[in-house]
Amino acid sequence: MYIYDKKTEVMFNIDQSLGLYTDFYELAMAQGYFFCDKKNDRATFDYFFRSNPYNGGFTVFAGLADFLELLRDFTYSDSDLSFLEKQGFKKEFLQYLKNFRFSGSIFSMNEGEIVFPSEPLMRIEANIIEAQLIESMLLNILNFETLIATKAYRIKMVCGTRGFSDFGLRRAQSFGSIHATRAAFIGGAESTSNVLAGKLLNIPVSGTQAHSWIQSFDTELEAFRAFAKANTDNAILLVDTYDTLRSGIPNAIKVAREIEKYGEKLKAIRLDSGDLAYLAKKARKMLDDAGLEYVKIFASNQLNEYVVKSLIRDQNAPIDAFGIGTEMITGKPDAALGGVYKLAEINGEPKMKLSENVEKNTLPGNKQVYRYLDENGSFYRDAIICSKENPYEIDTIYHPVYPEKNTSVDNLKWEPLLHMVMENGENRNEAKSPHEIHAYLLERAAKLPEEHKRFISPHIYKVGISKELMEKRNALSKPFKH
Amino acid sequence: MYIYDKKTEVMFNIDQSLGLYTDFYELAMAQGYFFCDKKNDRATFDYFFRSNPYNGGFTVFAGLADFLELLRDFTYSDSDLSFLEKQGFKKEFLQYLKNFRFSGSIFSMNEGEIVFPSEPLMRIEANIIEAQLIESMLLNILNFETLIATKAYRIKMVCGTRGFSDFGLRRAQSFGSIHATRAAFIGGAESTSNVLAGKLLNIPVSGTQAHSWIQSFDTELEAFRAFAKANTDNAILLVDTYDTLRSGIPNAIKVAREIEKYGEKLKAIRLDSGDLAYLAKKARKMLDDAGLEYVKIFASNQLNEYVVKSLIRDQNAPIDAFGIGTEMITGKPDAALGGVYKLAEINGEPKMKLSENVEKNTLPGNKQVYRYLDENGSFYRDAIICSKENPYEIDTIYHPVYPEKNTSVDNLKWEPLLHMVMENGENRNEAKSPHEIHAYLLERAAKLPEEHKRFISPHIYKVGISKELMEKRNALSKPFKH
Repeated sequence: MYIYDKKTEVMFNIDQSLGLYTDFYELAMAQGYFFCDKKNDRATFDYFFRSNPYNGGFTVFAGLADFLELLRDFTYSDSDLSFLEKQGFKKEFLQYLKNFRFSGSIFSMNEGEIVFPSEPLMRIEANIIEAQLIESMLLNILNFETLIATKAYRIKMVCGTRGFSDFGLRRAQSFGSIHATRAAFIGGAESTSNVLAGKLLNIPVSGTQAHSWIQSFDTELEAFRAFAKANTDNAILLVDTYDTLRSGIPNAIKVAREIEKYGEKLKAIRLDSGDLAYLAKKARKMLDDAGLEYVKIFASNQLNEYVVKSLIRDQNAPIDAFGIGTEMITGKPDAALGGVYKLAEINGEPKMKLSENVEKNTLPGNKQVYRYLDENGSFYRDAIICSKENPYEIDTIYHPVYPEKNTSVDNLKWEPLLHMVMENGENRNEAKSPHEIHAYLLERAAKLPEEHKRFISPHIYKVGISKELMEKRNALSKPFKH
Repeated sequence: MYIYDKKTEVMFNIDQSLGLYTDFYELAMAQGYFFCDKKNDRATFDYFFRSNPYNGGFTVFAGLADFLELLRDFTYSDSDLSFLEKQGFKKEFLQYLKNFRFSGSIFSMNEGEIVFPSEPLMRIEANIIEAQLIESMLLNILNFETLIATKAYRIKMVCGTRGFSDFGLRRAQSFGSIHATRAAFIGGAESTSNVLAGKLLNIPVSGTQAHSWIQSFDTELEAFRAFAKANTDNAILLVDTYDTLRSGIPNAIKVAREIEKYGEKLKAIRLDSGDLAYLAKKARKMLDDAGLEYVKIFASNQLNEYVVKSLIRDQNAPIDAFGIGTEMITGKPDAALGGVYKLAEINGEPKMKLSENVEKNTLPGNKQVYRYLDENGSFYRDAIICSKENPYEIDTIYHPVYPEKNTSVDNLKWEPLLHMVMENGENRNEAKSPHEIHAYLLERAAKLPEEHKRFISPHIYKVGISKELMEKRNALSKPFKH
C-alpha cells in the first residue's frame, strides 16, 4: 500500500514499517517501561471479546496466520526511528527499537475454531515491552478477520449446498478487502471477485458482467452473444439492464439456444434487482419451458444471511448461487468486533482490571481453555482454567459471576483449545490454506448444537471457570491499595 | 501488505500488482471488448451515490489523491499475467495488459467538497477497456474515504472548538485503517493514535495510556507517578482502572500537585468507562477544588456524533476533548457507501441504464455539475448539466423525475464542481495535505445552510438537471430494441 507524502514526495510502502502499525500510547508505555526498569518484566496478555457479533450464539476465530506473518515484519526502519525521534522519543529507547523483534511465545485457538465470549482466544507471553507494542496490530487483524469469518459462516449455514461468492471489493473498507476475502473464504465463500485476493490466497476467482457491458452494445442481444462467444461455457448473463422479464431473460434464452448449436452451454443468468424470489421463479419457468433446465440462476443485490434464508427457506426461490457483497465484506451491521487485549500476569504475579460492572472484570493469571464434550461428542461446556491446573482434577466448573451456578464435568471428554503457535519468536503454527481452515470449521461447527446457531435469541453456550481460577480472582477482588 | 502463500512460500507485496486489484468481471469484460473490436471505443463513466450516509443531509467527498496515486501503479507484473493465464485469459489480451497504463482523463469534485446524491463526483473519459478495469479500485477507495470523512465531519460539527482524536486502529477493518485515518483527518480529527498513519500522512499522533500500564505497577499511584515522569508536561492519566472517583482522580490530583513542585503540569485525565457526563462533572469539581483548573478532561468509550452531542449540548459535560474509535473508523452504522460507476457515453453516443424504479435510471452523456449560490453566497441548488452546455443559457433547473417541479436559477452566481484532475494519464491534481483539505471542507461547509446539517430529518438539498439533459434522457427512455 502506497500513500503519498507531500512533504518528501516519496511513496512509502507500509510493509517497511510495521513496527509503527501501533497506537501511539503503546510506544509511550513501552518507553515508560524501558526507563522505569521494567524492561525485563515478563507479561502475559489475553485476547478476548465480550459478546458474539450479530447477536449470534457463536463466533468463528480467524486471522491467526496473517497476524503471525505480519509479526515477523514488526520492526523499525531508520526512517521509522527518525519519525519517532521527532515525536520526542529518547535516543536510548530508539536504540532498543532498532533491534526490535518479537521474541515471545503465543498460544492460540486454531483458525476456524468455534469460540465464545470471555474465553482467551490467544495468550501472549513476552517481555512487557514486546507484548505491549504488538497489541494494536493484533487487535486490528484478529478482530476483523474473526468478524468476517463469522458473518460468512452465518451465510454458509443458510446457503447449505448452494454456493456463494464474495462480491464485496467495491464496498470493502479499502485495503481491508484482502483480509476480508480470506476470512470470507474461511467462513464458506467458494470464490471471490477480488482477483488480487485470489492470487494472494490461492482461491478461486469468479464474476459475471456489469451493466456497462450490455450498454456498450447497440442491443442487449448483441451484448449477450458477444459475451457468450468470449466466455465459452462459462458465461453468466446479467438480465436486468433494461427489463428482466420482457427483455433480459428472453434474450438470454435466445443466446443459450444459439450456442447449443455449437455444443456450448450457457452457465447461468444473474438477477441483480427487483424481487429476487418472484423473478427467480419466473426465470426458472421460462428457462425450463425453453428446455434450458441446466442454466443456473445466480442472484445478487444487498444480500445477507437473513435475506438468503428468507429466499431459500420461506419463499423456496429457485436460486442456485449467490453473490454477496457489502453486508459480508464489511461485517454489517456490526462493522467491528470489540475484542480486547488485557494484562493477566506480570513476573508470575496475576493481575486483573476491576470494573464497576463485575462482568467486565478480567480474569487473572496464565490461563488455558478446555472444551468439554457430551456423550455424542457435541460441544457441551467450555471452561477457563489456570494453565497449570491438572484437567483431570477438575470436576466442576462455575459461572464466572454467580458461583452458585455450576456444572459437573466429571467423566466428560475434554480438549484443550489454546495451542502454542509461536515459541520465543519462532512461528510454530501449522500452515493451512483457507480451504483447509474452512474444512476444519465445518468439522467443528458440526459439533455445535443447533440451538446455538439460531439467528434469533440463540441459546447461550456456557463458558465457566475452574474453582482455582475463581479463587485467584476473588483474592484479587479485595479492596486494593490506593 | 504481505500475505502468505502456502504453495510458493513467498510473501507477496500487493503493491506490485495493483492491476489485479479489480473484480474478475472487469477483466472478463475487458477481454471481451478486446476481442470484439471495441478496444478503441471511447467511454465515459460516472461515479455517484444514491443516498447520503447516516441518513444525513450531505456527504463529504474524499479519497481522490489516494486513488490517483494508486492508479499510477495500476499495472500488471509478469506474475500477475501468469496468474491470469491460469484463469484462462488469452495470450493476445495478456500481451495488451503487459503494457497497461491508464491513459484517460478524469474530472472530479475537489476533496473536501460537500456533495449530494445522484450528482457525478467523478467523470472518467477513457478507452473503454481502461475505464472498465479501474472501476473496482475506484469504488473501493472513494466509497470508503468518503464514508469516513463524512462521519468525521459529523463528529466535528458537534465537537465545535473541542478537539477529537482518531483512536480507531484496533477496531479498523485491517489495513483499511490508513485510508480511514486520512479521511478522519479530512473530516476534522486533530490527531490519530495510528503511528504509521501519522508518519505516512504527516499528521499529529497522540495517545494516553492503557489499563495495562496501571496494572503493571503495584499501585495506581506509582503507575501515575512513573508515567508523569516519563512524559513530562504531556501526561494524560487514565483514571478508571480500579475506581474512578475513589482512586483514579484522587491519585491523579496527588501526582499533579507533586509534579507542580518541579514546575511541571499534568495535561489531562482520561475517562474511559461509566457515565461520562456524571464522571466528568465530578472530576471537574475535584480538579478545580484542588486548584488544578488547567488539567483537562479527556473522554473515550464507544463515542459517536450522537453521544458527543448529548454530552456537550444536553448534559453540558465539562469534557475538553474526545477519543473516537470504532464508530468513526468503520463508519458505523453504514459501514459502506453505496457509490456506483455507470456508463454514460460511448464514442459520443449517450447511454443509460433503465430501471423499474425511475429514480434509479442513470443520466446519459458527458456531464458537469454546477452549484448555484444564493444572495448570501450560500449553497442554493446543484444542477447536473450536459458538459457542453453553456451555463449562461441555463435559467431553470428541473427535478430529475418530476419536471413540473423546477426552479429558476436566473441571475444566480454559479460555480462548476468537476475539475480536470488527470489528463491523458497525467496527474493534474493539485497536491494538498489533509490539513489543507480539511480547511477547504470548513470553508465549503460554512456555505451549506444549517437545515441540511441536522441529524434528524435533514432538509433535502435539491439537485436538479438542465432541460437539455432532461430531453436527452427522455429520448433514451423510449422503448428500447429487444
